[in-house]
Amino acid sequence: MNFASDNTAGIAPAVLDAIVKANQGFALGYGRDDLTERVARRVGEIFEREVAVFLVPTGTAANALALAQVSPPWGAVLCHADSHIITDESGAPEFFGGGLKLIGLPGEAGKIALPTLREALEQGPWGGPHHVTASALSLSQATEAGTIYRGEEIRALAELAHERGLAVHMDGARFANALVRMNVSPAEATWKAGVDVLSLGATKAGALAAEAVVFFDPARAAGMPERRKRGGHLVSKHRFIAAQFEAFFAADLWLDLARHANDKADQLAARLTGAGLPPVWPVEANEVFVALPCAVDAHLKAAGASYYERNSHDLPGGAVGGDVVLIRLVTSFATTDEDIAQFIAVATGR
Amino acid sequence: MNFASDNTAGIAPAVLDAIVKANQGFALGYGRDDLTERVARRVGEIFEREVAVFLVPTGTAANALALAQVSPPWGAVLCHADSHIITDESGAPEFFGGGLKLIGLPGEAGKIALPTLREALEQGPWGGPHHVTASALSLSQATEAGTIYRGEEIRALAELAHERGLAVHMDGARFANALVRMNVSPAEATWKAGVDVLSLGATKAGALAAEAVVFFDPARAAGMPERRKRGGHLVSKHRFIAAQFEAFFAADLWLDLARHANDKADQLAARLTGAGLPPVWPVEANEVFVALPCAVDAHLKAAGASYYERNSHDLPGGAVGGDVVLIRLVTSFATTDEDIAQFIAVATGR
Amino acid sequence: MNFASDNTAGIAPAVLDAIVKANQGFALGYGRDDLTERVARRVGEIFEREVAVFLVPTGTAANALALAQVSPPWGAVLCHADSHIITDESGAPEFFGGGLKLIGLPGEAGKIALPTLREALEQGPWGGPHHVTASALSLSQATEAGTIYRGEEIRALAELAHERGLAVHMDGARFANALVRMNVSPAEATWKAGVDVLSLGATKAGALAAEAVVFFDPARAAGMPERRKRGGHLVSKHRFIAAQFEAFFAADLWLDLARHANDKADQLAARLTGAGLPPVWPVEANEVFVALPCAVDAHLKAAGASYYERNSHDLPGGAVGGDVVLIRLVTSFATTDEDIAQFIAVATGR
Amino acid sequence: MNFASDNTAGIAPAVLDAIVKANQGFALGYGRDDLTERVARRVGEIFEREVAVFLVPTGTAANALALAQVSPPWGAVLCHADSHIITDESGAPEFFGGGLKLIGLPGEAGKIALPTLREALEQGPWGGPHHVTASALSLSQATEAGTIYRGEEIRALAELAHERGLAVHMDGARFANALVRMNVSPAEATWKAGVDVLSLGATKAGALAAEAVVFFDPARAAGMPERRKRGGHLVSKHRFIAAQFEAFFAADLWLDLARHANDKADQLAARLTGAGLPPVWPVEANEVFVALPCAVDAHLKAAGASYYERNSHDLPGGAVGGDVVLIRLVTSFATTDEDIAQFIAVATGR
Repeated sequence: MNFASDNTAGIAPAVLDAIVKANQGFALGYGRDDLTERVARRVGEIFEREVAVFLVPTGTAANALALAQVSPPWGAVLCHADSHIITDESGAPEFFGGGLKLIGLPGEAGKIALPTLREALEQGPWGGPHHVTASALSLSQATEAGTIYRGEEIRALAELAHERGLAVHMDGARFANALVRMNVSPAEATWKAGVDVLSLGATKAGALAAEAVVFFDPARAAGMPERRKRGGHLVSKHRFIAAQFEAFFAADLWLDLARHANDKADQLAARLTGAGLPPVWPVEANEVFVALPCAVDAHLKAAGASYYERNSHDLPGGAVGGDVVLIRLVTSFATTDEDIAQFIAVATGR
Repeated sequence: MNFASDNTAGIAPAVLDAIVKANQGFALGYGRDDLTERVARRVGEIFEREVAVFLVPTGTAANALALAQVSPPWGAVLCHADSHIITDESGAPEFFGGGLKLIGLPGEAGKIALPTLREALEQGPWGGPHHVTASALSLSQATEAGTIYRGEEIRALAELAHERGLAVHMDGARFANALVRMNVSPAEATWKAGVDVLSLGATKAGALAAEAVVFFDPARAAGMPERRKRGGHLVSKHRFIAAQFEAFFAADLWLDLARHANDKADQLAARLTGAGLPPVWPVEANEVFVALPCAVDAHLKAAGASYYERNSHDLPGGAVGGDVVLIRLVTSFATTDEDIAQFIAVATGR
Repeated sequence: MNFASDNTAGIAPAVLDAIVKANQGFALGYGRDDLTERVARRVGEIFEREVAVFLVPTGTAANALALAQVSPPWGAVLCHADSHIITDESGAPEFFGGGLKLIGLPGEAGKIALPTLREALEQGPWGGPHHVTASALSLSQATEAGTIYRGEEIRALAELAHERGLAVHMDGARFANALVRMNVSPAEATWKAGVDVLSLGATKAGALAAEAVVFFDPARAAGMPERRKRGGHLVSKHRFIAAQFEAFFAADLWLDLARHANDKADQLAARLTGAGLPPVWPVEANEVFVALPCAVDAHLKAAGASYYERNSHDLPGGAVGGDVVLIRLVTSFATTDEDIAQFIAVATGR
Repeated sequence: MNFASDNTAGIAPAVLDAIVKANQGFALGYGRDDLTERVARRVGEIFEREVAVFLVPTGTAANALALAQVSPPWGAVLCHADSHIITDESGAPEFFGGGLKLIGLPGEAGKIALPTLREALEQGPWGGPHHVTASALSLSQATEAGTIYRGEEIRALAELAHERGLAVHMDGARFANALVRMNVSPAEATWKAGVDVLSLGATKAGALAAEAVVFFDPARAAGMPERRKRGGHLVSKHRFIAAQFEAFFAADLWLDLARHANDKADQLAARLTGAGLPPVWPVEANEVFVALPCAVDAHLKAAGASYYERNSHDLPGGAVGGDVVLIRLVTSFATTDEDIAQFIAVATGR
């Protein structure tokens, strides 16, 4: 009954096999190996255009490096108030960005609505030497609330952002989960909708430690090799991070893994709804948020269930507080029907 | 004939097995797993004292984070002019250290001599608001020249550094190689000789991507968890980085791997000497530096030998230039007698 | 009719005289002169305790350096959402603080209420390696709304802050204005109420360019000389910045100048109220905020009145918008009765 | 007998008068005043081209901001090993530059020779993700040894720098002193010779606190307004910093002040030479360096002479040490014949 995070799961077997298989002979370090080159090409194929790709070991590194590329130190990155970059990365974007500012916008179910972005951009004050300059919009896909932005939503937000000179970053720690739900191509989900740079996560999805920063306009990546290196994020035995991605993309494994996780989230949501505990937000990726009576919470914990409580700036009024807590249940490629059945059994006292 | 770097080797079988073995079930992320706890305890046992240990994926991260802990932004880190931190990390220490300064000292065979350090500290000017403050001494062990500092050398340098208020950092990317040559305990090679913080490398020695920052006074690690996280160096599926270290330390594997690499370096050095190509510096770890006639160099490359040319600020006069190049040959746990025999055969034209 | 800012006024005659008088002979630079020493002692007398004082040329420098001293790079500084440090310093605190985070709290009339601070501190999440650590509370005195914190309000806020391990910074760009209104001693208005470090402004109050950072616990200033120097804020001909402060403090000039400015603000507020344009917030320092019909605004501007429109996150509902704008009128030591009479005449169409 | 530094002198009378004169009525802050606009235009006239000008209160700010504009955080700024930016600014360039690296080159009499620069650029290693990228050349004019670069020297150095993609910065804290000695136009001494950005000092030359950063290609100044503001270097009552420059440039005052200082240096050098104490380096600006017997040094100090001892990396062999110290004597617009006569009298024991 481990629903604490998708990073509590291990490595997907095919990814681990790829690491084992890559462990043959010698290969130049720091990305000058064939496997890395193949993966870079593969990412271009997947996104149907020339891209600049940089593999790094953590999602925080991917986000912070990406934002530092598209925002000056006196820039402001607009993001959802509950987004990972603003709440859970201990100031990494500010550090890598030379002291840039993150500005959290409110929004239901983890999503920034177009009018909210418009208001923020109009209200300001922005720029001039006294005020920071709105420089980037960061969208989490899937969001921290387990919801997803649809293609047209991204397109509208990105269009407004671009009009005002902002770059568009997508934090895709759970990009595959969003993709399989949207049922569109990677290209349509990103650059065709206006995304300039994507943090493409593989770790939560089944890798050991592998994230990619993908620039859809390679010119935007100028200086990125140096930035990654001096950030300590250029892995020396680079073939092993590349191997993870090669396996991840082979035979659409990444989509299969994500589909499994999403299916389990759907199943969990359905069973919880059946038990009178409907999710507080639409379940569109691999996360289920439930307002749980404290007694049930205690019961589940006593039974060994693992999950986290969550704060949210944008919870539907009255949903939690008193004797109700908001919990987050995350499914993964490794979640089984038994996990879910057991969780429901304990939650419902049956 | 791959002697380009010890990071061109793969993963030592026992380390890879440990990763595979750790891939069972779920484990909390970000270091809150049992394996991580075990490794932290194990490092304490190995160094015979309470320590604070932080695992990170790269050596650059280990060095930069360690130095930022022991030096203020207006500090100066004294190191050898050929040291990795000053020549090969693209300014990572300066970035993590908020703009600190690295000051390269000359020194034969990659080592800082005591009088050199004394002169640098006396000459200054240091401190006051106008000049940076000498805040740390960083020693590479083994050095970039493949030599090692003996216990008494470290002790003397560290004593002087401490007298002047400097912390002592050791860049131990090849610490195990030095250790087995010194034939002293890890404690004697570090804190008993005055080292305050160690970057303990496992990657070059046979891991996938695993380095540890070890503070011998845990109080010195205050803020380090936050610093690592915002540097993007807290690996989410942390059990897998811990697993590498557990295997590394089990049954003295790390010493065996290092001993193998050192033995191969000795063997290579002996064969080269026999062929009239004696190393320019004492071979004390797993690196052999040779002044190679360009014709031989061309011959070797044509035959597929892989190695790098090196610059050095402190090469014995007249050793290179003209039709002689300085090359670096690095051995590893994976180097075989055949590699060496083949290299010698090509080099000697036999 | 210049009410744009107190920094549009010139230099108070006595301060300018002091600069002229200080221009005799030679004096060592960088603060090693007698005048600087005298001023440092004088600040200690004024605040009735040993202090560490650092003079700098701008208020942004004073704030940013002070915050960097009391907050780690992974810290969060809690401040009012309309405070100068978060809206008007282009990210200076983030830059000097190595990427720290400013968190704006709501609050009526520019002030943070105790329950608001308590809720922010309780809600979190704070600390751990994932979340930034609440490290400082910054209070603007007088506030950006022209109001002031009373002694007991500061005491309560500071007590809560200290309980949670936060340092307390006071942005006193208009400290003298607050002080004369509070009618308490400088000590009571600061450290006796729990303030740890004060940005003490003289520029807006009548100096050319002179601000002081005052640490009430000198130990907290460790490293500050270096920080100021590398920030480029150690003025070389330092006697002239010291001279401004000497004149400022002589014969309570600073209080007289502030009292004049406050009196003019009171007078302006009274006349505006009489004209049916009452201030939207209590006038407690030298700023008057009025919701002005656009027609009147146009009329005033046509007549040459100079002032700025303001945004606020916390304006009383319905106060502005449509055909009403919020304007800020700032008085200074140089404001005359004629300025006010003329402004009122134009505003009222008489 | 004050020869400690040109910043121990006060304010030149005409500059002080200008401050007094500027203290009339109100003026918008932060550089939006007429005086500032006039000065910006005037700088363009002086340099015979469109320029972007930024006034700041200190030389350290000017240098650090200028270098941060023309170098990425992973850049290296090549400068003389004795230059102010590397020895006396407490790491300001590293701080403002996001952790860039300063690399000190040797050179006789404070000057970088062309072959030295060429060797540094050829030797490297530079660039790639592992090594920092040579990004700027910084020349001090006049140098820290009181010498000057001639037009053809600057041209040759700048040409080489530009070939390799480096920007050329000139630290002109004593630019006027160099200019009057070179007897060329400001344009010829800077952009016509290849200088991209100039730190133009007025403080040492007779101002209170006024330095200018001049970009000869305004496009290179993109982001500079924000950078200055967040550095805390946008002076609020900006008219007073502009007033200093207006007076400085009026009727060639800056050249007259510098000529006076240079003349006094020449006079001092001639008298010292006559007394058997010839300067160790050519006296080309307003600094005289002498190797002084310790007995004479003690005698002078006892008589109240004020000056500093200096270290140098590049002193002619055997010049100092033992019972001889290297001292620096700096003259200024305020140095009198009597100062010099008295100094010589004491030095020669007459």
